Amino acid sequence: MRETYVHGYHPRENERLQDQAGTLVDLLHSDTAYAGGNLVLEAGCGVGAQTVTLARRSPDARFTSVDVSVDSIAEAARRVERAGLTNVEFRQADIFTLPFDAESFDHAFVCFVLEHLARPVDALAILIGLLKPGGSITVIEGDHGSTYFHPDSSAAHAAIQCQIELQRLGGGNSLIGRQLYPLMVEAGLNAVRVSPRMVYVDSSRPELVDGFTRRTFTAMIEGIRKPALAAGLIEPESFDAGVRDLHRTTEADGVFCYTFFKGIGEKPRE
Amino acid sequence: MRETYVHGYHPRENERLQDQAGTLVDLLHSDTAYAGGNLVLEAGCGVGAQTVTLARRSPDARFTSVDVSVDSIAEAARRVERAGLTNVEFRQADIFTLPFDAESFDHAFVCFVLEHLARPVDALAILIGLLKPGGSITVIEGDHGSTYFHPDSSAAHAAIQCQIELQRLGGGNSLIGRQLYPLMVEAGLNAVRVSPRMVYVDSSRPELVDGFTRRTFTAMIEGIRKPALAAGLIEPESFDAGVRDLHRTTEADGVFCYTFFKGIGEKPRE
Repeated sequence: MRETYVHGYHPRENERLQDQAGTLVDLLHSDTAYAGGNLVLEAGCGVGAQTVTLARRSPDARFTSVDVSVDSIAEAARRVERAGLTNVEFRQADIFTLPFDAESFDHAFVCFVLEHLARPVDALAILIGLLKPGGSITVIEGDHGSTYFHPDSSAAHAAIQCQIELQRLGGGNSLIGRQLYPLMVEAGLNAVRVSPRMVYVDSSRPELVDGFTRRTFTAMIEGIRKPALAAGLIEPESFDAGVRDLHRTTEADGVFCYTFFKGIGEKPRE
Repeated sequence: MRETYVHGYHPRENERLQDQAGTLVDLLHSDTAYAGGNLVLEAGCGVGAQTVTLARRSPDARFTSVDVSVDSIAEAARRVERAGLTNVEFRQADIFTLPFDAESFDHAFVCFVLEHLARPVDALAILIGLLKPGGSITVIEGDHGSTYFHPDSSAAHAAIQCQIELQRLGGGNSLIGRQLYPLMVEAGLNAVRVSPRMVYVDSSRPELVDGFTRRTFTAMIEGIRKPALAAGLIEPESFDAGVRDLHRTTEADGVFCYTFFKGIGEKPRE
């Protein structure tokens, strides 16, 4: 079941992530840039939705982008090539068994990855081990519990709750955004600074109505109909009513809110 | 019952609003300034928590600040005087029967007021009538449904829900923040632009832990214990557990999130 909803491993998910990265790129990434010559590890690059943005914004840094899925890496590599970027190399590996020497990177970057892991602090600790002292880790995660909208709808909240529950059953945590600060501190990072990146959508922002409310968030919820019903989390009528109510928020008087969190912390210099 | 929780009419509320204005002033008001000579109507000034900020930031504009409560106005006037400001005059009046000529103001400002009104669109329409064509209305409101935190707690959400329900029983709407855009459009404003002002609090921001999570939001919820129990909305043990869990979010690994919304719209020039 896990594969039916985990980000980045199915075509519809891929398209969704692509939309997300396209419309949210400034909100999430505009304050991330690495200096020339820096070696940056991107852990969990998926199909490269963030990789292209990262590499383009820091043309003189060198990126090593890793994912557990060979197919995702192949797609990510195609995207990076199409974008004309030459500062990224790819490696297939699990985040818990990364094939790199200790203290071999200047910085690490992790986006939409920790939410899928049962031991996010352990994953951060591994990344810290790969960083030179004083190096930084940047983490970006969403938080499905940050979702609210107008008109309000208990059916829509129930449908969203299915996604939260499925991710929990799969060992993940889709409420992880709000927890970045304590997780990063617990992992041993210094000077941790977390900032929210709230996506506010009303009909004066049609590109977000379509790109985020409809094609990113609501499409994600629509995509879990089968596993949510199979797991007995909800009745089909209730789920469908919830999805209808999410679409209702895209009308002229509708409003939709969701918040991502971005944290940055530093490996102690000892 | 209404007076037991409506903002700005009781000493503890006053203190809370003062804290709120003190810690949130930049977040809410830093982008509001009026040109010299402008006449600005502040509708529902309460005890002047926002009035001092407004008048100080626009020293060459002239403010007329109105509230339904004589006591609140007296307190607001004392504050303005203590701040050494001379560009504010006060009037006691109900927002639905304002004693001003049509088209007599350049701008209007309404903060934490619409949430208490059963007919917020009618109130906005009255304010629009008092504006010169092309004048602006600025509206700031919170949204209690935007509240989430770590550790998560259903008891804390239940206690917050009591405040939402009390405000609804009093004819108000504490989820109004997310609705500013459609309400302002419905009232007939042009070029409406709403932006969220999210308060994100973790222990790296001790001034917000104390000033916002503890002394503003949690104090507000603590303040409705009596009316919530009297209205039969919750059992005392559950309410107290909820308040304890809100305090829990102020510990070193806790996180607290709340969002205000600020909208600005323009009266059509016809």
